[in-house]
Parts: sequence; C-alpha cells; structure tokens
Amino acid sequence: MNLHSRGQEGQVVWFTGLSGAGKTTLVSALEGKLLEEGRKVQILDGDLVRENLSKGLGFSKEDRDTNVRRIGFVAGLLAQHGVTVLVSAISPYRDTRDEVLAGYPRKLEVFVDASLETVTRRDVKGLYLKAIAGEIAHFTGVSDPYEAPLSPDLHLRTDRSSVSECVSKLLGALGVREAVGA
Amino acid sequence: MNLHSRGQEGQVVWFTGLSGAGKTTLVSALEGKLLEEGRKVQILDGDLVRENLSKGLGFSKEDRDTNVRRIGFVAGLLAQHGVTVLVSAISPYRDTRDEVLAGYPRKLEVFVDASLETVTRRDVKGLYLKAIAGEIAHFTGVSDPYEAPLSPDLHLRTDRSSVSECVSKLLGALGVREAVGA
Repeated sequence: MNLHSRGQEGQVVWFTGLSGAGKTTLVSALEGKLLEEGRKVQILDGDLVRENLSKGLGFSKEDRDTNVRRIGFVAGLLAQHGVTVLVSAISPYRDTRDEVLAGYPRKLEVFVDASLETVTRRDVKGLYLKAIAGEIAHFTGVSDPYEAPLSPDLHLRTDRSSVSECVSKLLGALGVREAVGA
Repeated sequence: MNLHSRGQEGQVVWFTGLSGAGKTTLVSALEGKLLEEGRKVQILDGDLVRENLSKGLGFSKEDRDTNVRRIGFVAGLLAQHGVTVLVSAISPYRDTRDEVLAGYPRKLEVFVDASLETVTRRDVKGLYLKAIAGEIAHFTGVSDPYEAPLSPDLHLRTDRSSVSECVSKLLGALGVREAVGA
C-alpha cells in the first residue's frame, strides 16, 4: 500500500485516554505509516517523559499537570521544526490538556476510548482490579479522575473498532490518503 | 555576506561557561548566521528550560545535574530531527556534561571563557559582587564550583576576542564557510 500525504508541516497529535485504552498500540501503528510517508515522527510517551523530565513528580493533580505541561513544551518545540509529534499520555485533566493544546498552531486531539470493563480485561498486571479493590491510590479511572475530552478531533472506540480502522481514521485526519491496490 | 554550508544533519552545540561569559550573546549571533544558511536552529537556554522543565529544582549539584540532563534529553530529540540545537547553560559539572554529550552522534562542546574580573565587570546586577561578599550561596564561579572543560572542541575567550571573531570560529567548526566579499 502506498500512501500519499498532503503537507509536511509539524504538528502535535495528542492521544489521551485511560491506561489500557490502546494509546501505545495506535501510536506505534500510526508511526509506522507516517514514517513510510517520509514524515519526521517523534513519539512522546508519558512514561518516557516522566523518566527523563519529571522524575520525582507524583500523581497529584498538580504533579500530573506539571508532567503534561512538560510533555507539551517538548512537543511544541519539535512540531515547530516540522516533526509530527505523537503524544501518548493519560493526561486526565481537561483544563490542562486544553491549555497545552491551545498553544499549538496545528494539532489533533485524539480520545482513545474503551470501557472500564475492556481496559480491566486487557490489563495483564491486574492493576485495575487492585485499584478497584482499593489497593492503589491515584489510579486514573478508578481512584483518580479521568476527564474525557468534550469535543476531540477524533474519538476512537478501541473496544468497537480494529487497530487498522482506527489508524485509517487517524491517517484521514492527518491528511494522509491511503491508496487502495497501489 | 553569503554563507555556504556543508551538511544539514542535526547536532548539538553545547555552550558552557560562567554567567556573564557571553554564552547568550554568542548563541544569538550564531543563530542568526545559521538561519541565513537555511538551517533549522533551536536555542535551549538554561533559564528557559528551568522555567519549563525544571521548576522547583534548586542549585545543589544534584538539581543542577538533573536540569542539565533534561536539557540534554530535549536537545537530543531535536538534533535527531535535523535541528542544530544551541544549548546555552552554565552546566558547571564536567562529569555531567561529558555524560550528556557522549549521547550525541554529532556535537560540539564550546567553552565560553572570560576571567572572573571580566564577568564581574559585565554584571550590571552586581550578583558577582554580592556572591563575593558572601551574600549569595551556590553562585557558580564564586560560592559554587565551575569545572571548565578539559578538551572542549572550541575554547572561546570572550575577554580577548570580539563577538564576530568568536562567531567565525563557531561557523568554521560547524562546517559553514563564510564567503568574503560575496
């Protein structure tokens, strides 16, 4: 399959959603497609950024917001230089996401959505079950809030759509046309 | 004056030196020349990074090192995408600079050097005099260490050379040829 792209300017594609909703899977699949297109792509993963930029921060609202703003700062720098930045971060608070996204001339907010039942079933480490049992504090979606986007650019239901369906929607939203049978 | 460049790969140009040594002046002047060349350039200033990535960190060795590593992480990401990153940061500890710089395939360590007498004379805020009087703790070069590079790629004496002389040396080291009389 060949892909034909429009525009090579940088932009930020911000994936928000619960742990286990499928952010990493989608971001990895999308990265592959965009690299085939010759785009410059950088994944900024919430955990990677915590390790490199936010060690010592915890999971209070203030600390989560600080982490999200730091991801946002780095994503903005990269996008300014023509990179398509794929941010994969729970980023649970709406006001902070909105604030960070407002700073980008070109961006896409992607809500990666799956039911609590689905993410719990997918969770091989059993963290959701522990959180539901009250054993993990500040666990997003259970013992800590997750504020879904009110009007995301894309709302992907990973419990109802396949990865390739979701990636097709992402490519469409990014102006990348998939050529059929080429 | 026209400039002719060789190579458009990203790299990190790391300016280390005392406050007042002239890092910001050189970085700004160099940025202008590189932009004329059509290069992608990003300045990462120690203070900017403190504001956006390291708020809450102090000036202990550990905190300074953390700040330098964060700058280093972001600089590396940008350089990977073809950006010439001009880092301007006191970055006083040799081992931490060496560790960060070792992670880049293409880099230049620039020691921006001026005597304590010179930087004190340039310091309109009088911070050096206060530090010398014992009124400011952790002031690099007076009440906190500055470990000069042992073998920097460039050693610029801003108390003996003009800005344009220093910039010429930088452009030479970056493979940018200045055309005379063009």
